[in-house]
Amino acid sequence: MKNKKALCYVALLALMVWCIKGFWSNNTVKVKPLELDQSQQEFQQQVNRDDLLRKEHEISTLKVEMARLKMESSKCGLESKFSPEIPKIYAITPTHYRAVQKAELTRLSHTLMLVPNLHWVVVEDAESKTDLVTKLLAKTGMSYSHLNAATPKSWKPKAKEPRWVKPRGVLQRNTALQWLRDNVSPNEDGVIYFVDDDNSYSLEVFEEMRYLKGVGVWPVGLVGGLMVERPKINAEGKVTGWLTVWSPNRPFAIDMAGFAINLKLFHSKPNGKFSFESEKGYQESELLKHFVGSLNELEVKADNCTKVFVWHTRTEQANLAQEIKLRKENKPRSDIGIEV
Amino acid sequence: MKNKKALCYVALLALMVWCIKGFWSNNTVKVKPLELDQSQQEFQQQVNRDDLLRKEHEISTLKVEMARLKMESSKCGLESKFSPEIPKIYAITPTHYRAVQKAELTRLSHTLMLVPNLHWVVVEDAESKTDLVTKLLAKTGMSYSHLNAATPKSWKPKAKEPRWVKPRGVLQRNTALQWLRDNVSPNEDGVIYFVDDDNSYSLEVFEEMRYLKGVGVWPVGLVGGLMVERPKINAEGKVTGWLTVWSPNRPFAIDMAGFAINLKLFHSKPNGKFSFESEKGYQESELLKHFVGSLNELEVKADNCTKVFVWHTRTEQANLAQEIKLRKENKPRSDIGIEV
Repeated sequence: MKNKKALCYVALLALMVWCIKGFWSNNTVKVKPLELDQSQQEFQQQVNRDDLLRKEHEISTLKVEMARLKMESSKCGLESKFSPEIPKIYAITPTHYRAVQKAELTRLSHTLMLVPNLHWVVVEDAESKTDLVTKLLAKTGMSYSHLNAATPKSWKPKAKEPRWVKPRGVLQRNTALQWLRDNVSPNEDGVIYFVDDDNSYSLEVFEEMRYLKGVGVWPVGLVGGLMVERPKINAEGKVTGWLTVWSPNRPFAIDMAGFAINLKLFHSKPNGKFSFESEKGYQESELLKHFVGSLNELEVKADNCTKVFVWHTRTEQANLAQEIKLRKENKPRSDIGIEV
Repeated sequence: MKNKKALCYVALLALMVWCIKGFWSNNTVKVKPLELDQSQQEFQQQVNRDDLLRKEHEISTLKVEMARLKMESSKCGLESKFSPEIPKIYAITPTHYRAVQKAELTRLSHTLMLVPNLHWVVVEDAESKTDLVTKLLAKTGMSYSHLNAATPKSWKPKAKEPRWVKPRGVLQRNTALQWLRDNVSPNEDGVIYFVDDDNSYSLEVFEEMRYLKGVGVWPVGLVGGLMVERPKINAEGKVTGWLTVWSPNRPFAIDMAGFAINLKLFHSKPNGKFSFESEKGYQESELLKHFVGSLNELEVKADNCTKVFVWHTRTEQANLAQEIKLRKENKPRSDIGIEV
């Protein structure tokens, strides 16, 4: 028995070595035509060809590694973890143009790429979908929907008005919610979560919410002027209030990143959405009142709300002092023909 | 036991099928450029571009699946030797405690988890390794080294002193470099890259640097008061200077995120390191002077330095106004017993 197993592994190893060798010889064969080209083609073409070659090699090595990892995982019976039967997470992200937008969406996409069975609904605050976001989403290889909805001027903060005066992302989040009502079956297992493009998310938070039956809640770090804002939990493990300093008497004194909603529950309440009319800090309450009758219906997650799995980080506006100076002096901008 | 054997054979079969498929697709991919060599250059360029996009998409998908498998494998203690056949990237990250540290390291780790064959060298500015960073690193399932080196008081910015007055991360980066000299073989294929815990990195930037023979350079977004700072490239595709506004006459007017160094070259220059003595903005020049004789030795990456694959983002300090108030009023802090 043992011998057979040993033999089997040896055979595997041999097979893999043979594969890798195979790819090497493939690549060397491929190099020849490229070298010939380099004498005739323009610089741009050479760049593309070399790039193509590098990417082909990368794909080969990735596939080799994948095969190895898949075997390892199968030994711990992990296949199920990746089965499409697990409830899907619909992550809703409103986004608007600013200098750091591409950087923010890029690093956020890396987090979401690591979450199994997640569908990313990205809604641009723009008259039409931008090339920047379109290309960025295509590159992720994720399952996603790309929408846009421009906030009316009357609801945009005026110059010098602090950014909290006007509610932000209302129209974009509602657009995403309407898209879910129109495009996702009421019978599908899943949850809805609002993912802002400047917050930081652990991978744990997504697994906390995946199997919610109703509305689940958990702490949020670095928000409301505190290290952490969180629900107040009693001995029975039920929510009795909110451990916040600012306006703890709101019906749901919780940040957008601190809750998720079961998809079937969402479908069962067709009026559940955000409103431009609700006062500052009441967007979450405005939405959740449709889905939650009383606090003790809330599902307490993150180890009885003692763990922080999401942080309300904020990215500084890019310092573009020199760029502005260039424009004043009618000098060319630094990013001509370059998407930043 | 029987199951294991069965799984083993299934894996074998799967691997064989994949091999055959792998070679098949490789062959078709390989033929394309040969056929198209006859046709016109413009058409050819378009085909190459489409091909590149298709491959980028395939790579993203593979990386996502792999990162998940890798995480899962590590959870059940299966150490996977990651893609030993491609050069390894040694990513050096100095980090210090502040309220947003865990959030920053968490989202950065997600980016690095998606990079094949990367070893993360994390150096804490602390007297000893913290639980926070220790646990965070262990959870990633990545290949990493955890070091610490406390910056002497004399080199820490004084209260109210702007953070650029004193050079930051010098001791931590040098500690990582010394670790590489002591622990990594001079014969190993690899590159060294400095990854700050508040910047934003695309996955592309790591593939740009992977096969460097010397020192490679590329643009950095949102730095020096500009949308992008980048090397000045001549018709021969060589670096002739620096497109920056602030101090463009520095020997290497480039941000820490804008270059990487081949590992063998690094080993060949035992004195290459940073210095507390170098004046503001000269850290990069201080290091690179050891490895680069003249600008035209630099390897120009990122499509002739016309693409931005890394951004010098900055995260706002957490607003803890309410937390401070609680302490003044001798009320319990919000994060008692909770790691944020």
